[in-house]
Order: sequence, then structure tokens, then C-alpha cells
Amino acid sequence: MVYKNFKQLIDTNISKASAKTVAVVCAEDDHSVGAAMEAGREGIIRPLLIAGEEKIKPLLETYGDYCDYELLPVSNQEEAVQTMVEVVNSGKADAIMKGLIQTADFMKAVVSKENNLRTGQLISHMVVIELPTYHKLLCVTDPAMMTYPDVDQKKQIILNAVDMLTRIGFDTPKVAALAAVDFINPKMPESVDAGLLKEMYERGEIPGCILEGPISYDLAVHKESAEIKGYDSPVAGDADILLAPNITVGNVLIKSLAFSAQGIPASIVTGAKVPIVLTSRASSQMEKFHSLVLAASLKGDH
Amino acid sequence: MVYKNFKQLIDTNISKASAKTVAVVCAEDDHSVGAAMEAGREGIIRPLLIAGEEKIKPLLETYGDYCDYELLPVSNQEEAVQTMVEVVNSGKADAIMKGLIQTADFMKAVVSKENNLRTGQLISHMVVIELPTYHKLLCVTDPAMMTYPDVDQKKQIILNAVDMLTRIGFDTPKVAALAAVDFINPKMPESVDAGLLKEMYERGEIPGCILEGPISYDLAVHKESAEIKGYDSPVAGDADILLAPNITVGNVLIKSLAFSAQGIPASIVTGAKVPIVLTSRASSQMEKFHSLVLAASLKGDH
Repeated sequence: MVYKNFKQLIDTNISKASAKTVAVVCAEDDHSVGAAMEAGREGIIRPLLIAGEEKIKPLLETYGDYCDYELLPVSNQEEAVQTMVEVVNSGKADAIMKGLIQTADFMKAVVSKENNLRTGQLISHMVVIELPTYHKLLCVTDPAMMTYPDVDQKKQIILNAVDMLTRIGFDTPKVAALAAVDFINPKMPESVDAGLLKEMYERGEIPGCILEGPISYDLAVHKESAEIKGYDSPVAGDADILLAPNITVGNVLIKSLAFSAQGIPASIVTGAKVPIVLTSRASSQMEKFHSLVLAASLKGDH
Repeated sequence: MVYKNFKQLIDTNISKASAKTVAVVCAEDDHSVGAAMEAGREGIIRPLLIAGEEKIKPLLETYGDYCDYELLPVSNQEEAVQTMVEVVNSGKADAIMKGLIQTADFMKAVVSKENNLRTGQLISHMVVIELPTYHKLLCVTDPAMMTYPDVDQKKQIILNAVDMLTRIGFDTPKVAALAAVDFINPKMPESVDAGLLKEMYERGEIPGCILEGPISYDLAVHKESAEIKGYDSPVAGDADILLAPNITVGNVLIKSLAFSAQGIPASIVTGAKVPIVLTSRASSQMEKFHSLVLAASLKGDH
């Protein structure tokens, strides 16, 4: 399956009747509650709001009649986090979304061994972006969480993204390990790592995908450029996943795609038992909505 | 002066009567001769073709009547390079363009002390890009030449770009030292360098510009994002120059802008006595043309 855009992803993967339940942890700010209730109204998700009753009250006055929701009242942040752990481990929540809680506190609860939300996989961040200039949804990872991953961590970041896209319905995602050059240059560590990943892939250590690297951005997404340069690869011009060599490349890339290439981004944290929506206050309503779409599009268990 | 696009740059800076002379070194391939003669026909430049007579003959059959040009015949590459050195040092050529000669050989001649083409400045590469989603021409540096510059080299890369833009007519260019974050994080070297550059700027060591850093891509080019995040700076949303922390960030960025954001790039090598057009075989005709426009737009001596 190839998804041209988010609409197609919604039409294919989401039905109101079997909408996924997303727990909003500390659902006490307009931005997270608004996004969750809006997605609820569209039939994308069922909001499960974990919040202090007094704190969420004014928000429910605004959004309460958007959709059916469930409220799990808590008296403080600690209880909210504990409730999140329970609803994930009991299978009641299919995904979680960060509300009015510091990212560090929230992620600490996610990664804490005793909360049993981990799967043994590394936790990484991926952005899926709809671009007017590309023929399908494009994933960039990791632009936010793993800062300067080593080769093994890069492998795990790729596996996380491949797992996610496969569960969304992509057939054998094509992975481009990005560099500034299309050959291994010992003086350019990003190209060396990309070459090592290609070797690992050829040895069967990165299954479920087709991987190419080192490969430059233009060859990964633009078939004509690859043809001019004589770069022959099934990934050339048709990449599904762009592996950024580090957070700076990933961050600049997703922002250039979102702000200069008019892309619509959705972002998700992967590798825990359930997908995590971790948008920031500065994220647009559209980004929050599509991040929930992404979380709700996943099929099957982890 | 703010240039919305290349057309405005041409209209403002270039007149057929005083067109700059661009020496094409080893003008023996269709791509460089075609680009130079096309720019000649448009009155952007006067081509000064340095080439083997036999080798350029078939090309002149195609392009010979495009415009007035001068041919300096040479018998081999060594002579071509020597002729380039002479026409630059005598002031006959205002800019040079690489033809059918390996980039390494070409640049070796440029940087060689005995050829006297250097100015004492570092040699760096900059791309100026016209974007449908930005209100003016945007410069990214250095996406190709200085691979992993240290802070002092970054300072020189900035000074080269500021010098170029100022000679094109920009008023006090606004420089964004890019990072993945908008604050100094000791664990993120790009942000540390950007912070150091800001300090150097505040001490007056990087004159002729307004510099901000560390700053993320969205805040540099998108005013609303900066407002949402409370990031107050004259550079926010209005950057003229984006300093990429290294070649990989720069390369991925310019390619995402060119191939996904439908930008029109022009590239130039700066820091030598004259601007250098160093496009590759894979560069589009449009890129070659606009690179010549950039070289031809420079006012005043170095």
C-alpha cells in the first residue's frame, strides 16, 4: 500500500466504529484537549482524558459536546502518570498523548522499567510528512529524541520506523540512510555509518525493508537526479523513510519540509508498548490532528 | 535592498552594456558552454571561453551565434588553467566558471599560492535560493566545500557570505546560525558553536551583519513560529543567511529546498579574487544560469 496523503490513510485505516482509544495524560491544557476532542469529533480516536476534575472543567465546557469521551479524574500529576501506566498495561488505551506535563517527566514515566511500558526496543521519534511535491507520505527519523545515535542505535531507529510504517500498511518500506555524498568518504562519518548500515542490511540484520546508503537527499526523493548521476537503486526517487544521521540534520530537514515545502507533518514516538503523541505547544492544530491520525492508523499489536 | 527573486536581482544589478566577463575554464563540454552562451544571449555575462580549438568547435556550431564571445585557444588543461590565472590577475575576467576539468584540479589551481588567486580569506561555498514560500532570496552556507568547520572557520564562512550579499546589494544581512534547538545545549555541539558565534558577533568580531544563534530553521524563516515560542530577534522570520553547522546539514537543506520546496538555487564559491561558478553535471540548466546571474550581480572589487 502506498498512501499519497493523510486523507487516504484515514480513509483506508480508520473507521469510527473501531476507533482507537488515546489516553491524554494531564489533559489540562487547551492544546491537547482541543486536539484530542477534535480528532474524536472526526471519528479518528476515542479520547480517554486523564485529568484533575477542576482543571479540565473549563475545557469540557468548550469541547465537551464534540464527541463521546471518558474522563478518568486524578488528583495530581503522579496519579495521572500512574493511571496512564494502568490504562496502557490493561490494554484500555491504544496510544497516549502528552498533555500539561513536562516532556521530561512524561518520558521518564514512559522509559521507567517499573512502569513496564517498554518493549526492549529503543525509543525514537519519527515524523511522517505529506508533501505537495512527493508522491507519497514520507517519514523522517529521528529529528528530536536520539541526538547523535551510533550505528547500532541508527539500526534500531530504522527498525522502529519500518515497524511503524509496516503496521500502517506500507509494503516493505524503502529506507534512505542520508549523507551529503553518495559514496563512503572516510572523512565524513555520516557516510561511513550509512555504508555500515547498508552492510548490516545486506547481512540480513535490518529486515523488513529495502535499504540504501549513503545517499543524498535529492537522489532519495527525485528519480531524475538519480538517473542523471547514474545512481541505480530501488530506493532512489522512491524513499519511504529518510534516516537522518543526527538530530540537527533531522530537525532542519523536517522544518524545511514543514515551513518551506508546505508539508503537513505528523509526529510520533515509537518503541514503547503504544505509540506516543508528543507534540509541543508550538505545533500547529493540523500537526496535532495528524499525529493522532498516525497513532490511530496502526494495525495489530506491537 | 531586498530581492524577492532572481528576476529582481537581474533587473536591478545587470545591464547588457556593462555585463561582466566570465572565463569558462576548459569550455569543452555542452553543459558549461551552453550555460555561458545562454547567459551571454540574455545579456547577463560576456563569455570568455578558454578551450582547445578542436574541442570547442562542435560546441560553437551549436552556440556560436548566441552572443558575442571571446575564445582563448589553449592546447591542454595546464595551459587552460594558466590562462585562467592570467585573465583573473589582469582583471580581464570578473568571474570564472569550471568547464570540462575535474573539480579537484580546478580548485587546486584556485587555492595554489603561486597562482595568486587567493585573498587571504577562506574559500567557501554558498547557495542563494529563490523560494515560492519565502519573501526574499535566501542564502545557505556552506553546503559543499568546508565539511566540518570549527568556530573560526564558521566565522569566516559567515563573513564570506555577508561580503557577497552586501556586494549584491543586501543591506546588513541577517545571519541565522542554525541548530536543532534555540538555546545552548552543551550536549549539542552545533548549538554551542552557534552560541560562540553570537558572542563573537556581540564583541564586534563579525561585522556587517545582524547575527542570531543558536536558532532553529523554523524560527529563522517563519515569524509566527518565533512569536509562538517567544523568540525575539530581528533575525527571526527574516534571515538572509542560514549558517549550516556542517556540510551534511547544509547539503540536505539545500536539496530539500531545491527538490521539495521548489526552490531555484544558484551556487557560488567565494573567498577567491573573483567569484567562481562550480556547478556540476547534475545541476539543472536553470541552476547554472542563475549561478552566472549571481556571479554577474556582484558590484565593486573584492
